[in-house]
Amino acid sequence: MTSANDDLKALVRTIPDFPKPGIQFRDVTTLLLDGRGFGLAVERLAATVGEAPDLVAGVEARGFILGAALARELGCGLLLIRKDGKLPGATIAEDYALEYGTDRLAMHVDACSAGAKVLLADDLIATGGTALAAARLIRRAGGHVVGARFLIDLPDLGGAEALRAEGIDVASLIEFEGD
Amino acid sequence: MTSANDDLKALVRTIPDFPKPGIQFRDVTTLLLDGRGFGLAVERLAATVGEAPDLVAGVEARGFILGAALARELGCGLLLIRKDGKLPGATIAEDYALEYGTDRLAMHVDACSAGAKVLLADDLIATGGTALAAARLIRRAGGHVVGARFLIDLPDLGGAEALRAEGIDVASLIEFEGD
Repeated sequence: MTSANDDLKALVRTIPDFPKPGIQFRDVTTLLLDGRGFGLAVERLAATVGEAPDLVAGVEARGFILGAALARELGCGLLLIRKDGKLPGATIAEDYALEYGTDRLAMHVDACSAGAKVLLADDLIATGGTALAAARLIRRAGGHVVGARFLIDLPDLGGAEALRAEGIDVASLIEFEGD
Repeated sequence: MTSANDDLKALVRTIPDFPKPGIQFRDVTTLLLDGRGFGLAVERLAATVGEAPDLVAGVEARGFILGAALARELGCGLLLIRKDGKLPGATIAEDYALEYGTDRLAMHVDACSAGAKVLLADDLIATGGTALAAARLIRRAGGHVVGARFLIDLPDLGGAEALRAEGIDVASLIEFEGD
């Protein structure tokens, strides 16, 4: 977002043409491997959160990483949003669009109490389709989506704007433009 | 392991007949939702680790949760071991047996430097097939698997013993026998 996080941006590796030609894949695994960088990222994102939420929600699979780390940093619980069919209890599900076709996310219907304040977390926001589906699930379950936090925003793809249009407070640490 | 963790064991929900009849699924999502329980679990597992490792390795998908939380608690980086095809850089891969057929795990070939001390983390150890495949990957990449930590051990399935037979120090917080 600002040059304040250029130290973290330098830890993100860009892999050209993955998963297909023309895509510049922003690879956070190199940042996560750096214990100091991973720690700074979690601390800086936590510092953008005002009142601590009741839960942090992480979306399978990479969203579990920042979700778990932020939940611990903020001292709250972790809510898992998974691919359909993975959760063992009674679930609710939401479809979201992929480039070709759709995919489906699910959460345990009893995972958040009515009015629980839930913060969404993921490593990257692109078009926002996954995050919006996760927000719909949390709201259907009675939760209040108080915000969403990402390591990386690809602003040209409009996901952060789409979340803000839903009344969700959004912050991220790193932007890559032109993606 | 001991009654010291009965408070955490009480937070694990058992779902009968998932994913198929006869299986008692030990569901950690209810423990993770409890901010205090999640925090205690991470602190108690971290307390079983002597010298801090260089990296904690988490296996996709649920292993990312405890992996990320333990890496932060121990102040080190997180190494991702993923299903084949998900990592964008050059990878090495290992197959492991499922009940029917095999699956394949991969890691970035440059994810750990030679001699790096790596601690494996996952929420549950059953037969140990996944953890053993992860250990083989780390060793092929030049790392030293200094230990493995799990929230839950199903000792009747022998996974912890199989890891110990490979010279890996294993600890867990909760046991369910008869599984």
